[in-house]
Amino acid sequence: MNGPGNGTTTHGMETIKTQVGIVGAGPSGLLLAQMLHLAGIDSVILESRPRSYIENRQRAGVLEHGVVRTLADCGVGARLAREGMVHEGIDIRFGETRHRLDVKALSGGQCVTVYPQHEIVKDLVAARLQTDRPLWFEARVTSLLDLETSRPRIRFEQDGETRELACDFVAGCDGFHGISRPAIPGGRIDSYGRDYPFAWLGILAEAAPASHEVIYAHHKRGFALQSMRSPTVSRLYLQCPVDDDVEQWSDDRIWSELHARFATHDGFRLNEGRIVQKSLTPMRSFVAAPMRHGRLMLAGDAAHIVPPTGAKGLNSAVGDVRVMAAALEAYYRHGDGDLLERYSEIALRRVWKTQRFAASLCTLLHRFHDEPRFHMRMQLAELEQIVEDPRAAELFARNYTGLPFDV
Amino acid sequence: MNGPGNGTTTHGMETIKTQVGIVGAGPSGLLLAQMLHLAGIDSVILESRPRSYIENRQRAGVLEHGVVRTLADCGVGARLAREGMVHEGIDIRFGETRHRLDVKALSGGQCVTVYPQHEIVKDLVAARLQTDRPLWFEARVTSLLDLETSRPRIRFEQDGETRELACDFVAGCDGFHGISRPAIPGGRIDSYGRDYPFAWLGILAEAAPASHEVIYAHHKRGFALQSMRSPTVSRLYLQCPVDDDVEQWSDDRIWSELHARFATHDGFRLNEGRIVQKSLTPMRSFVAAPMRHGRLMLAGDAAHIVPPTGAKGLNSAVGDVRVMAAALEAYYRHGDGDLLERYSEIALRRVWKTQRFAASLCTLLHRFHDEPRFHMRMQLAELEQIVEDPRAAELFARNYTGLPFDV
Repeated sequence: MNGPGNGTTTHGMETIKTQVGIVGAGPSGLLLAQMLHLAGIDSVILESRPRSYIENRQRAGVLEHGVVRTLADCGVGARLAREGMVHEGIDIRFGETRHRLDVKALSGGQCVTVYPQHEIVKDLVAARLQTDRPLWFEARVTSLLDLETSRPRIRFEQDGETRELACDFVAGCDGFHGISRPAIPGGRIDSYGRDYPFAWLGILAEAAPASHEVIYAHHKRGFALQSMRSPTVSRLYLQCPVDDDVEQWSDDRIWSELHARFATHDGFRLNEGRIVQKSLTPMRSFVAAPMRHGRLMLAGDAAHIVPPTGAKGLNSAVGDVRVMAAALEAYYRHGDGDLLERYSEIALRRVWKTQRFAASLCTLLHRFHDEPRFHMRMQLAELEQIVEDPRAAELFARNYTGLPFDV
Repeated sequence: MNGPGNGTTTHGMETIKTQVGIVGAGPSGLLLAQMLHLAGIDSVILESRPRSYIENRQRAGVLEHGVVRTLADCGVGARLAREGMVHEGIDIRFGETRHRLDVKALSGGQCVTVYPQHEIVKDLVAARLQTDRPLWFEARVTSLLDLETSRPRIRFEQDGETRELACDFVAGCDGFHGISRPAIPGGRIDSYGRDYPFAWLGILAEAAPASHEVIYAHHKRGFALQSMRSPTVSRLYLQCPVDDDVEQWSDDRIWSELHARFATHDGFRLNEGRIVQKSLTPMRSFVAAPMRHGRLMLAGDAAHIVPPTGAKGLNSAVGDVRVMAAALEAYYRHGDGDLLERYSEIALRRVWKTQRFAASLCTLLHRFHDEPRFHMRMQLAELEQIVEDPRAAELFARNYTGLPFDV
């Protein structure tokens, strides 16, 4: 997809027009564009990176029940339905004992599906390209203008030229480090957050997952997680100090630490395999509120970040996008601006719940080395309540497989 | 009740014999003595304070469903049944909005009863005196001896003389500052705990409680609680800095702070009245484990402390005493020492659950001034889950009205 053809030129700068200008072609921007397309609403997506980059960026991969349904309803669920791995339960370990939570039964029939985020991005890019609506790569947004008017503009650079996109609304879907959130004047937005005193060392290993379900392991040495990319590729994570470097983690050290943390009394053993990728992820909770300023609306990581423990990042973004798409549809189809007006309020309702779950799961499962050992006893008592009391198990399963969408 | 009459004298020191020597006449020691009496087991209670002191020591006053039943089963529930105020619900406030939790319905029929701890102590003292079994006041225990043998001894001072009580078992019911826990050698006991960065300013006021149920108020100024001693006397608490002094809190300042924290959108107003008592309570979680060393068994505050938020102190002690009494009965009646052997393991099972509830309720409701404001958002999301999701509400109600006793 190359540059615009329908532009007009003012002051030597080419201006293009659309209804919704979307900043960022991550899952939020792409899904919003698809939903708007289905509602007959024009949009232009501006993405600073090349297509190959966004289609290969490794992120989370556990999709809530309602997110899978949303993608299918938007016509981008076919490959997900074929290739996604449906999980009906999870394996929670503590005190070196395994406990299976049948999240499907506990949540009244909701499953999660393991399908990597970059595969969703590929599916959404392919769908967008089929619509012939604009999706421009390597189009770097430099500023958002006139956000408090009814005709905001997005200035961007592409092919060495500065251009402007004039639109009715701007959707800020450009992630935590994007330009959209900082475009809101300081006094008009608040931020809330917490940095955790640990990070995740993540690896991709050519090894069949030893458990076909995701394993969450609470261990005095620190948290560990086993997920999977495919039946032959494991995705494994280890809690490590926040200032560690990947270089400090040899393959041998990684496997020895993984074996120690996943060990159970019944002799469970992880499968080893060639480690093809290592990375470090810091842990952060973050929320910016409100999520709307004038004609700019934020969605996904541009507005909020979760620690990855509950795999809620993408799922939370989908909640935002559903509200934003519904609000724009109500506006364009019926001239009803009420949902737009209440976008932030409605989206944040679910965001805070998801943040709570992600933060509490993160706090429950990781070792806090600076806390007195009483803290670990409290974690164990909480974990025991989850596996012993059906109310606690149901509450966990409902949150894990996805709270209902408000819109 | 004066000194012993059935003693023998060795080495110039009078020695008395019994089956179970009980250190401390708080609710744990007195209830244990009553249960042992009903099982036909001899005991001697040694209390360092005078009777008037223990009968007037102000403590918590919210009794779990099962604790009320336990007291009735032990024949000390008559006045409690007449004078105790049965509560079927609680009032939880946050965001200046009231929410009522019908804990009776949510817990499958369990209520709590407001009845001050020192009234229970009076009832138990009266019951003990009726049995003609020994309860000695102003008998100060100075050491516990031979705990690892089958004939431990309790040395104590009374009326200016040193005496010894020879027994089969020693029940350490002498509270957090007592002599029993420190009698366990350092390497044989672990302690776990947390001090909270705030305290409670508690007052007793001659004012009718404005709500007939207990009010838990989460507020950005700090936590506040309204309970009651009677239909005309309110018991009120305010979170305050841990290093505050009662002198810093004038009556005016107390009322103004209480009004601010209990305020709701619907115009609720607390009743004022003469303040007849002010006190400061620090907040601590503490557990010593194991709870048995040789022939010494700890119960109640001697082994564990909870922050008072969930009113679990006395209730948790009753759980211990039930296990200890059952273990001693199995031993004396059937010669079965198995429960005694497992006393600590069984008692701690419920202790940890109760600690978890008390610590999490304390953490949920208080303002942590050093935490980022994200923390308060997480508290509000958690409180919202409790009032919105029936599973969370049931879990809360079950914990609040009392988890089942293991024994």
